[in-house]
Amino acid sequence: MATKQTTQILKRLRSLMKDTTFVTEAIQAYIVPSGDAHQSEYLADSDQRRAFVSGFTGSAGTAVITETDACLWTDGRYFNQAEKQLDANWTLMKEGIPTTPTQGAWLAKTLPVGSKVGVDPRLFSKDQWTPLSKTLKSNGHILVPVERNIVDAIWDDKPPPPSHVIQPLGIEFTGKSWQDKVKDVIQEMDAKNCSLLLLTALDDIAWLLNLRGSDIQYNPVFFSWALVKTNGEIHLFVDPSKVTLSVRQHLNLEADVEMAELVSSQTNNNVLAILHPYEDVDGFLAAEIPQQPKKIWISDKSAVAFSNLVAEDILCSDVSPVVFMKAIKNPVEMAGMENAHIKDAAALCCFFAWLEKEVESQRVVTEISAADKLAGFRAEQADFVGLSFDTISSSGSNAAIIHYKPSSETDRPINDREIYLCDSGGQYKDGTTDVTRTVHFGCPTPFERQCFTRVLKGQMSLATCLFPSKIKGNVLDVLARKALWDVGLDYLHGTSHGVGHYLCVHEGPMGISWRVYPDDPGLSENMVLSNEPGFYQDGEFGIRIENLVKIVPAKPENNFKDRKFCTFENLTFVPIQQKMIIAEMLTKEEVAYIDQYHTQCRDKVAPLLQKMNKKEGLNWLMRETEPVG
Amino acid sequence: MATKQTTQILKRLRSLMKDTTFVTEAIQAYIVPSGDAHQSEYLADSDQRRAFVSGFTGSAGTAVITETDACLWTDGRYFNQAEKQLDANWTLMKEGIPTTPTQGAWLAKTLPVGSKVGVDPRLFSKDQWTPLSKTLKSNGHILVPVERNIVDAIWDDKPPPPSHVIQPLGIEFTGKSWQDKVKDVIQEMDAKNCSLLLLTALDDIAWLLNLRGSDIQYNPVFFSWALVKTNGEIHLFVDPSKVTLSVRQHLNLEADVEMAELVSSQTNNNVLAILHPYEDVDGFLAAEIPQQPKKIWISDKSAVAFSNLVAEDILCSDVSPVVFMKAIKNPVEMAGMENAHIKDAAALCCFFAWLEKEVESQRVVTEISAADKLAGFRAEQADFVGLSFDTISSSGSNAAIIHYKPSSETDRPINDREIYLCDSGGQYKDGTTDVTRTVHFGCPTPFERQCFTRVLKGQMSLATCLFPSKIKGNVLDVLARKALWDVGLDYLHGTSHGVGHYLCVHEGPMGISWRVYPDDPGLSENMVLSNEPGFYQDGEFGIRIENLVKIVPAKPENNFKDRKFCTFENLTFVPIQQKMIIAEMLTKEEVAYIDQYHTQCRDKVAPLLQKMNKKEGLNWLMRETEPVG
Repeated sequence: MATKQTTQILKRLRSLMKDTTFVTEAIQAYIVPSGDAHQSEYLADSDQRRAFVSGFTGSAGTAVITETDACLWTDGRYFNQAEKQLDANWTLMKEGIPTTPTQGAWLAKTLPVGSKVGVDPRLFSKDQWTPLSKTLKSNGHILVPVERNIVDAIWDDKPPPPSHVIQPLGIEFTGKSWQDKVKDVIQEMDAKNCSLLLLTALDDIAWLLNLRGSDIQYNPVFFSWALVKTNGEIHLFVDPSKVTLSVRQHLNLEADVEMAELVSSQTNNNVLAILHPYEDVDGFLAAEIPQQPKKIWISDKSAVAFSNLVAEDILCSDVSPVVFMKAIKNPVEMAGMENAHIKDAAALCCFFAWLEKEVESQRVVTEISAADKLAGFRAEQADFVGLSFDTISSSGSNAAIIHYKPSSETDRPINDREIYLCDSGGQYKDGTTDVTRTVHFGCPTPFERQCFTRVLKGQMSLATCLFPSKIKGNVLDVLARKALWDVGLDYLHGTSHGVGHYLCVHEGPMGISWRVYPDDPGLSENMVLSNEPGFYQDGEFGIRIENLVKIVPAKPENNFKDRKFCTFENLTFVPIQQKMIIAEMLTKEEVAYIDQYHTQCRDKVAPLLQKMNKKEGLNWLMRETEPVG
Repeated sequence: MATKQTTQILKRLRSLMKDTTFVTEAIQAYIVPSGDAHQSEYLADSDQRRAFVSGFTGSAGTAVITETDACLWTDGRYFNQAEKQLDANWTLMKEGIPTTPTQGAWLAKTLPVGSKVGVDPRLFSKDQWTPLSKTLKSNGHILVPVERNIVDAIWDDKPPPPSHVIQPLGIEFTGKSWQDKVKDVIQEMDAKNCSLLLLTALDDIAWLLNLRGSDIQYNPVFFSWALVKTNGEIHLFVDPSKVTLSVRQHLNLEADVEMAELVSSQTNNNVLAILHPYEDVDGFLAAEIPQQPKKIWISDKSAVAFSNLVAEDILCSDVSPVVFMKAIKNPVEMAGMENAHIKDAAALCCFFAWLEKEVESQRVVTEISAADKLAGFRAEQADFVGLSFDTISSSGSNAAIIHYKPSSETDRPINDREIYLCDSGGQYKDGTTDVTRTVHFGCPTPFERQCFTRVLKGQMSLATCLFPSKIKGNVLDVLARKALWDVGLDYLHGTSHGVGHYLCVHEGPMGISWRVYPDDPGLSENMVLSNEPGFYQDGEFGIRIENLVKIVPAKPENNFKDRKFCTFENLTFVPIQQKMIIAEMLTKEEVAYIDQYHTQCRDKVAPLLQKMNKKEGLNWLMRETEPVG
């Protein structure tokens, strides 16, 4: 993780901020957001603009460049990484620390009166634009759209946009045809009095059409836009070279647009997919808007460049209906998630059995070579497609970097003197996994064991709680932290994120954090979330224990006001290392929970290991799942 | 609690909704909010407009009248009460239940397209106006201000506004002079680039000027407005008949306004109070606005009628700075709160000792006569001023009505067969109290005991937790509910509210609830809050255990990232009835906590009872504080 020299980049950027071939009038600040034109979290190389200007490569962060300052906002997962990657031109702004100003407050205070702040309106969502614009305005500044991206203009060796083919995902994996999903979407549009819906989030489009791509590493999505009309048309804007014959068949595509529109006018109540080039979305949307009999639905999570095309009184800016639909897994999707997790657990059992032996034998295994080996075990599993994110394979002090990714400069051998934290996941055609285990191959210190036990207590407290359905996820966050808070410890990240079905490993709209997820519809049956408290001692070690869980109905002895109490059930079945646990700190119920969990690990994963003839993995699983109590 | 016949009232109201002497054009809906022109929670009789039109007398609720419907929104504390008080003209809208639409959503859906919704802009804050106006607009309706209040026009026997004299509160109670407080406010104004601040909340003004009144029952406030200017002037708008000589001396008031302004122009940097008639605020504000060199601060919690006078770009609509100042008690205020609670506990010991004896002797004590007796015990204490809210003296099924107030129709004898719940508080010159105890004078059922024990476990879990300072209160809410959720139980009210110092018993901006308090600055040292989980079995019984607590620094063994961990300390020291506790359901730590709490009750309250020669109260205290363990 090297520090990037940004003096020249900033100099060129600042010069273009005054260049009227780019801006109508000089701007005093330029914002470089993290996302792409689809507001993706993970990015194609060609969209890594913030990393290019600042050097900071984490998945979340916003750069703001003024004539004199360059600041980078990121959250607690990335403080250490950002400190290492940013050069002296940059100031790190630590989000989540009470004294850190927001970007708006900082700009308002720092800029000379009457300043202009520029941003690419494709890279900024409406819900980012509106409050920032208001803050700036009330402090005498103005937020202006800069249509030509200034970073792209100075990015000499910018990679080309990705262009991989798209694959259909069969009904045996999706559980529902894309036509039925589009019909559900149209129902939601009717309920909101909308006749046109623009989808810009890549995972929304992939889920809705039962298609998967590989334009963005780890996220099986493809660059596209989609427009749904209540007459049953779904217009897909995508590079035609990505659309294979199997995709055309899957979508029942007609030979050309004119023919499709002809068929559409005849079939009326049926759902019909129509293909357009990716670039045509603006023109098509602009032509459709004046013709709409009802409102136009463009989520305020979409680029402000789109919502700016629509008058406020005919705009519905609610969250896309697909977001809520894909958060509730259908029975086929859930069965796939469960199966993917058993395969994933088998791979992890083989990995940890192998790693333990290598370390014991004093053979050199580094963070990177371990991650590669783990990927190899995953690749042996059926329907494996790839990893779901960069493997966080981290030893000793590297494990304190919450979203660490080993690089050639930071790579360390895994040994029997330090904690090893491994956070990894796979994409399988039947589901997405994300699991963290923290282990020690020698003798952990009493403090390490105490911290691990407290993290585990929090993890169990959340896993076993009952809650009335539809409560917001943030309500439960403290359950995962209480055992740490009791002794003055904490972790600077959320406790839980939603997970897609063979889609993005971070999927909204719900989550569990001290922060409120603004679009959280309330925790409901058949959602899939992570449960991942941690503890990080900077420069020394890191601990995280992560399972994915599904929400299931609970059956408590009372049923107050028919609140439909729910609880969590584990999807992840990988043993927890008992050496790290101080059993005396556990209650009787906690010991029983761990033993029961380990019994489930055996029952679910051992048969697959046997079938695959993975003796070492099986032996490891059996040994690691001996009862604590 | 009788049902009010509202047919005639609604008929007259609907007729005026079309009467152009009141409205420019006919309105299709009229909103009757709960508050007064100061957005008070508790109201003077002359401001009980929502109770007048609907019959519902609870402290929170909004009535909406359309041409065909009449709906009342209120929260879970009041569902039972509202059901009893509303006649068949009304539909109860249960807030906090996921399926209940918001007022905006309901109006948007119910009204014919292009409807006008009217509201008195004095009774509606800007933060109520803005989102409702937006929702209505995006659904083709419009929110319009109706300057002449339509309820007042049909309220034939409307009581006159109260007119009680104001009292200064000495520095021995307040700990800080009003001049120093005004100087602090001016600092905050400078920091926000404001030259004028309008205060409309009655408790803000009372706290800032170290004055107390009695215009609103239970809340020692007086009707007034205040304008602070950064030149040091504070303009107080109040009925001159309320301003006694002692108040004039306290405020160093000059003989008349002209003289005061003369002095002001000479002293410049000093703080100067200037008196105006209550009604003059609009004219004075309108004249001041164009003269301001900087921004004008009018909180969006104030009536929209005021913020409408100011152009958006020179308006600061942040929460009033006084809100945050008075939430952090200074050492004198906190010592006063502690002392008030010891006096209050002594009164409660005498009360419960007396009540137990009366019930045992089969003498008739009703909810009302018990509440009166309790008020009498409080009145024996030094510096007692009055009650801090209507005593909730409730027996059996009445205790399930969360904010029950006994009336002649509902009054029941207290007996040894049913639970008795008593939620009460006092105003003392040195502090405000609020305490709930739930007792049984005979044999509680196993289910009652189980519920009580779970409520107590939640209460203890919150009381004993450690947390990083500045976290929002809502984060902690689940700690108080977990033991109930574990068996499918819950309570439909928040867990905690802030409490004023000899001021309002409900004081913002923080609190602990599943709902987020939008202006919560984060929990901080020297805040005072309630801790009051409960459980209510409709038609059978109610349980609530409430202490007031203060926030103090904790001293955990670690100090992660210098997060300044805090915890709570009890201010309330009234024994918890052990008969209601199932000791086997408690952990060792919980038993130790109760025993320690009871020891504190003895140590703190027994000396006062001895001094007052209250033998029965003292005996009761000693008996009730025997160790559990």
